[in-house]
Amino acid sequence: MNPGPALIRGSCLQPGVLASIKRPSALRSISSHMPQISMDALNPTFEKVQYAVRGELAIKAEVLRDKLKEPNHGLPFNKVISSNIGNPQQKGLDQPPITFTRQVAALMEWPELANLAPGVFPKDVVERAKELSEEIGSVGAYSHSQGVPFIRKNVAKFIEERDGYPSDPNHIFLTGGASAGVSLLINMLISSPHSGILIPIPQYPLYTASLAQHQGRPIPYYLDEANGWSTSIDSIEEALEKAREDGTVARGLVIINPGNPTGALLDESTQEKLVQLCEKHNLVLLADEVYQNNLHRPESHPFTSFKKIVSKLESPVPLVSFHSISKGVSGECGRRGGYFECTNFPEDVVALLYKMVSVALCPPLSGQIGVDSMIRPPKPGQESYELWKKETDTIHAALASRTQSMSKRLNALPGVSCVDSPGALYLYPQIKLSEKAREAAKAAGKEPDAFYALALLDQTGICVVPGSGFGQKEGEWHYRLTCLCPGVDEYVGKLERFHLQWVEKYGEE
Amino acid sequence: MNPGPALIRGSCLQPGVLASIKRPSALRSISSHMPQISMDALNPTFEKVQYAVRGELAIKAEVLRDKLKEPNHGLPFNKVISSNIGNPQQKGLDQPPITFTRQVAALMEWPELANLAPGVFPKDVVERAKELSEEIGSVGAYSHSQGVPFIRKNVAKFIEERDGYPSDPNHIFLTGGASAGVSLLINMLISSPHSGILIPIPQYPLYTASLAQHQGRPIPYYLDEANGWSTSIDSIEEALEKAREDGTVARGLVIINPGNPTGALLDESTQEKLVQLCEKHNLVLLADEVYQNNLHRPESHPFTSFKKIVSKLESPVPLVSFHSISKGVSGECGRRGGYFECTNFPEDVVALLYKMVSVALCPPLSGQIGVDSMIRPPKPGQESYELWKKETDTIHAALASRTQSMSKRLNALPGVSCVDSPGALYLYPQIKLSEKAREAAKAAGKEPDAFYALALLDQTGICVVPGSGFGQKEGEWHYRLTCLCPGVDEYVGKLERFHLQWVEKYGEE
Repeated sequence: MNPGPALIRGSCLQPGVLASIKRPSALRSISSHMPQISMDALNPTFEKVQYAVRGELAIKAEVLRDKLKEPNHGLPFNKVISSNIGNPQQKGLDQPPITFTRQVAALMEWPELANLAPGVFPKDVVERAKELSEEIGSVGAYSHSQGVPFIRKNVAKFIEERDGYPSDPNHIFLTGGASAGVSLLINMLISSPHSGILIPIPQYPLYTASLAQHQGRPIPYYLDEANGWSTSIDSIEEALEKAREDGTVARGLVIINPGNPTGALLDESTQEKLVQLCEKHNLVLLADEVYQNNLHRPESHPFTSFKKIVSKLESPVPLVSFHSISKGVSGECGRRGGYFECTNFPEDVVALLYKMVSVALCPPLSGQIGVDSMIRPPKPGQESYELWKKETDTIHAALASRTQSMSKRLNALPGVSCVDSPGALYLYPQIKLSEKAREAAKAAGKEPDAFYALALLDQTGICVVPGSGFGQKEGEWHYRLTCLCPGVDEYVGKLERFHLQWVEKYGEE
Repeated sequence: MNPGPALIRGSCLQPGVLASIKRPSALRSISSHMPQISMDALNPTFEKVQYAVRGELAIKAEVLRDKLKEPNHGLPFNKVISSNIGNPQQKGLDQPPITFTRQVAALMEWPELANLAPGVFPKDVVERAKELSEEIGSVGAYSHSQGVPFIRKNVAKFIEERDGYPSDPNHIFLTGGASAGVSLLINMLISSPHSGILIPIPQYPLYTASLAQHQGRPIPYYLDEANGWSTSIDSIEEALEKAREDGTVARGLVIINPGNPTGALLDESTQEKLVQLCEKHNLVLLADEVYQNNLHRPESHPFTSFKKIVSKLESPVPLVSFHSISKGVSGECGRRGGYFECTNFPEDVVALLYKMVSVALCPPLSGQIGVDSMIRPPKPGQESYELWKKETDTIHAALASRTQSMSKRLNALPGVSCVDSPGALYLYPQIKLSEKAREAAKAAGKEPDAFYALALLDQTGICVVPGSGFGQKEGEWHYRLTCLCPGVDEYVGKLERFHLQWVEKYGEE
């Protein structure tokens, strides 16, 4: 029977077809009329949204990357290094995926492979894929909107083993990365134009972007750079006081632990005080814990989940904890997988969240399976364990040593100070920018740190994100760079040479 | 080095750990406090959102499915048939995935497979995966927020071949299914509380749900059931007139072609009139064309894209056309893949859309690759072509014959009339419900059609969606069912027996 016109027409490039494409007339038609859609007639909240991680710098980096393909590009570098985003597996960084994760995923895509390629897949991988297939069926089918029940049960088990407290699979939502969940929860908590959410400064700009889109007010509180970007209860109380004066009703508190962009880790006593603060001010605690497995000095700076603290204190504070497969050692950003767990949420609110996610049908199955592989890695004694151990240890070690040597070398530069992050994937150095540099930036119509970052990109091909994208104190300047680039010497060498030339040109103070 | 506490703790189930889980105390803590988050303090728009496709019926179906696992479940059926949602590959329906699509996906997950399992993959699959890998790199990396440029170029080529008019890859956005794009565009067009969007009745509830969430007003216009669910310009003009009286500013027109739930197809002259109507009233045309490849009688009811009509008329009407890999013969719902193309959009609006999608980072790579496989299927002469042709022809043929025989048998039932859909995956029969039945529904606190659908589920295990979830004229009742169930005789046989018993119990008029 018929495969349908679309496929017939789409099936292959017929010379005749393309010859018949009426380009000029169609193009004329577009230019010969006034557009019927214009910015001033669109949702005004869209214009307020800012997301520097993929902003001006990132867009320019793409343009330069294309330019490099030209034979005589005339650029002073031969590759663009995207240090603007925590994207471990991107070209040029090439952090290898965990083999176990990909073997399971490949079998789920084409289950017959287990028989067609006998012996190619480890025994435990074949068993895992078989178990998942029995629970899920085809990865091409919609799952439960909250995510595959079996995978949510496994996530609950992972949380119970991590924290030693119970976890309810029905209060876990698998998501397309942590961002989707954060946006949904912020949207839910903004109940009026006066609603606000406490966000750390510096912050990951997803939070201000989501607040702008959902018409909520950011309530900034400042992290203490002098004390390794620590979180102070007083600074949050101050922010709450100021919010009250502005007529803003605080609904939630965002904590990013380990920190982004700071890489800082909270100690348990601070976490307990934060939970008590939420209890006192009736705040929902939004715990962004996506870097919980990126720990460079776990002995001195371990990770403790807020779920554990809330459970230990038997606190009634509503908590949402976000996790992701994009970071950690998994680095599976492209799969779009993650989850959030709701604690102390009444059933009707959980049902409301279910209804909202059901409109989007379900999170991607490739991401859901990625979550399962992350929280159920091979066990000692299983065929895949040794390779998994070797791969994950190597990634942890490389990140830890890179972070340390990069911060050391950045600290050695004139006018640069950098906290040696104990966690996450980033460094957030502070740079002194002289009056001369600030004047030049003003003349160019840029923020001083954006002006610095643009010059860095133009001269070295290294793309970082200026501190103004994350927030910083008045008159301070920073940038965020990732610690993912394999060739530290070459990478930091370029940064050093650029900075020294900059200081020569603009002076230190 | 260290794999990080989370993975150490998560790596396997230690008996000691679970033994130490403090269930009772933690549970007591949750019950012993008043919740600090309650419905009345949440975003009021969330409560207005309705999505019947995964509503009361679907939730009850899940409960029954679990009950069937019990040895003495006492239910009058032994399986639940989910006809509420177009999910071809779900368990029990088991429409097979297209082998080519899955082979490419498996190789992208674990590229070494090509060498480890020589001869297992067809030559063209290996070449396709190699080509995609060179363009994309790892599927575990974020892509461009708009989607992989190479895949967007291929989509543009597919559109040009389909329509014979130019398509710009920079105005194409790959998405996590069509729904994500629809929600974004509706959010963008709602610029004030007075903004409204014209939606067909019956409609796919994604539209009313997105309007409720983004605080826009639905402007309903009715499709003409007596004329095979055709779209009438007059009914839209009437709706616009009424909207003006209500102080609603119409910003866009939603057209679903082929129709959902109706399966109707528009003829080109109606499409031209609709474009002219958008031009006259300055409306953005939102064309939901996700069923463009589900055509049961393409000779009499072909599909023509609105892109082709707008281009042919050289119209300045801003058009967004949505497509998806979830439907058609691909049926890859779980991958979450699709795209939308913007026509007659100025660059600053396209840049605004880019900024918004960049906050969510990128669509799932598994979905993006699924889009590429759908719009670049094997060509005649390639190793995979024959199997691809056989698989797609079989699916098209089965859908066409099932739809026809089901509508025929439904029409033969007393008080049931059903348009024989020429497209999509559904039938939307109208059912007469007697006063006695309506009284019984009222007593049960249900809409009459929901009452009918609940009884159908309770007695047969067949889950359909009542017409009240899609919209219908006052005093008319319908339900939507999919034409995906393989065993038509068993499936429709159950529907017939149920309906005849219903008529016996409640009477026909």
